[in-house]
Amino acid sequence: MAGREPEIITEKNQMRKWSRAMRAKGETIGLVPTMGYLHEGHISLIKEAHKRTSLIVVSIYVNPGQFSPTEDLSTYPSDFHSDIRKLMAVPGGVDVVFHPHNLYDYGKSKTTGLKNGGGSSNCENSSGGVDGEVEKKGVMSCVEERGLGHETWVRVERLEKVMCGKSRPVFFRGVATVVTKLFNIVEPDVAVFGKKDYQQWRIIQRMVRDLDFSIEVIGSDVMRDNDGLALSSRNVHLSPEEREKALSISKSLLRAKFSAEKGQVNCRELRNLVTQAVDKAGGRIDYAEIVDQESLEAVEEIKSPVVFCIAAWFGKGTSPRQSP
Amino acid sequence: MAGREPEIITEKNQMRKWSRAMRAKGETIGLVPTMGYLHEGHISLIKEAHKRTSLIVVSIYVNPGQFSPTEDLSTYPSDFHSDIRKLMAVPGGVDVVFHPHNLYDYGKSKTTGLKNGGGSSNCENSSGGVDGEVEKKGVMSCVEERGLGHETWVRVERLEKVMCGKSRPVFFRGVATVVTKLFNIVEPDVAVFGKKDYQQWRIIQRMVRDLDFSIEVIGSDVMRDNDGLALSSRNVHLSPEEREKALSISKSLLRAKFSAEKGQVNCRELRNLVTQAVDKAGGRIDYAEIVDQESLEAVEEIKSPVVFCIAAWFGKGTSPRQSP
Repeated sequence: MAGREPEIITEKNQMRKWSRAMRAKGETIGLVPTMGYLHEGHISLIKEAHKRTSLIVVSIYVNPGQFSPTEDLSTYPSDFHSDIRKLMAVPGGVDVVFHPHNLYDYGKSKTTGLKNGGGSSNCENSSGGVDGEVEKKGVMSCVEERGLGHETWVRVERLEKVMCGKSRPVFFRGVATVVTKLFNIVEPDVAVFGKKDYQQWRIIQRMVRDLDFSIEVIGSDVMRDNDGLALSSRNVHLSPEEREKALSISKSLLRAKFSAEKGQVNCRELRNLVTQAVDKAGGRIDYAEIVDQESLEAVEEIKSPVVFCIAAWFGKGTSPRQSP
Repeated sequence: MAGREPEIITEKNQMRKWSRAMRAKGETIGLVPTMGYLHEGHISLIKEAHKRTSLIVVSIYVNPGQFSPTEDLSTYPSDFHSDIRKLMAVPGGVDVVFHPHNLYDYGKSKTTGLKNGGGSSNCENSSGGVDGEVEKKGVMSCVEERGLGHETWVRVERLEKVMCGKSRPVFFRGVATVVTKLFNIVEPDVAVFGKKDYQQWRIIQRMVRDLDFSIEVIGSDVMRDNDGLALSSRNVHLSPEEREKALSISKSLLRAKFSAEKGQVNCRELRNLVTQAVDKAGGRIDYAEIVDQESLEAVEEIKSPVVFCIAAWFGKGTSPRQSP
């Protein structure tokens, strides 16, 4: 059943103007930031937002700031028209889709100091500009690679370094920065993030606290397909066989959960249970850690609330699958 | 002539509530962030704000996030009651003084992962907690030293590295972060900064652009005493003799300006003019650079608008005097 069509806004100023006009009427605004190619996981975030605010903004923007030039920005899946159809089917609907062309385009400002990069890149529309200094340190995203002149980054210095941050050094810097930008453009009362990306959710929570954003951050539970695989836009890259093998993650996580519930507190034992199953299925593990739910520090023995986080690669995909 | 007394607000939530109530009435808000010990330079910023907004908030907060433990946080001058008297004398007055006790106190949240630092420190109320990882890299402020658990920092990666950033690696990280916090708490329409701290002003401008803050940033001209010395709270540390010697900065800058106006475009010649005079007066130069007004990159020959930036130490003061 198709519902009402959301208003599509592409300009920052128009987005902010809409939010301020609505707030002046006493409305409250919920933001669900996405990179598009929507699935039931995203829809569940929108439903969470509907519980809390009168109006819903969904942003659809594949953020170059969180991809390094060697990652999969250029092959990240997208289907805007299908996304809009899915949003129209959400009970209660969506009021605005914020779909900017380029959040890092600031008009005519100078981009001095950029040098030619050369080499191959997965950044779309690459213009070849490279910040030599950032590159030297090994921290460069597709934003620097494109030579856009953007140079301000929000760093959650402790939480960004562990787990996904080890293999993807620009990732959380890019996420925290684009979320800050979206917060400043949309000015929401509530923002909803999925706990599938557990570390991301905790980083946004910490950032909101540390920078005094007046925004309530909600974490929404992992959504899984009928077979148990956590929903993710990147699942589209998996062949049926690879998908079957990737189920080793959710199945062994479930076994580890049962084992912990029955009294196993030794994290090495619990981790082995999962890593052996994923190894056996041919997965390449990026990390598999049992960590404190707040500090994200690795835990040896379960004494307080923990979360099991794993990222592993199946098939030829260029990005790891993560599933807490 | 004493005017009306400003309302003094110390709590973040109360500050934001005031701003939102005023905005709902159609008022506009100008913010002048200060570290107190106010002088005519600060007053000139307030006058600039009065030209643009109907209400004025002055924040008074000595920000530990921009001091390293070896810098002068514990001896930074303050006199809150005198500050209030000065604000009451400003034509048009000041509506609110935002004077928080500790902007980095988030209540009961965990501060796990902090290790004991030991050693001496100029951070007031030091509790001895030190973030080992940050310390290792040589970037640590009094916020980490106090073990407050704050870990989110705004970095303007290119502009923060030059000039003052070289000798004060935590400084601009701390400034950009506290200004972000103040922006999120006060939610002003306009914020005014002094061009005495030229690099700081440019960094805030860049940050506002890159993070999409909906705030107009105004740069206000340097204010000088009758003898030519740029006004600064830290001038109080100078003896009459040191003050006389420090005038070598403003005097030689003026000569360099005349020389450039008469056609001298060679920056080495112009720099020598200043550095020799300051050297001769016994000043210890931190840096003296002629830079592009926007990129802050050093210039060899004047072709586009530039600014002469210098920081130098006189006497036993622990912080350099800067004066563009």
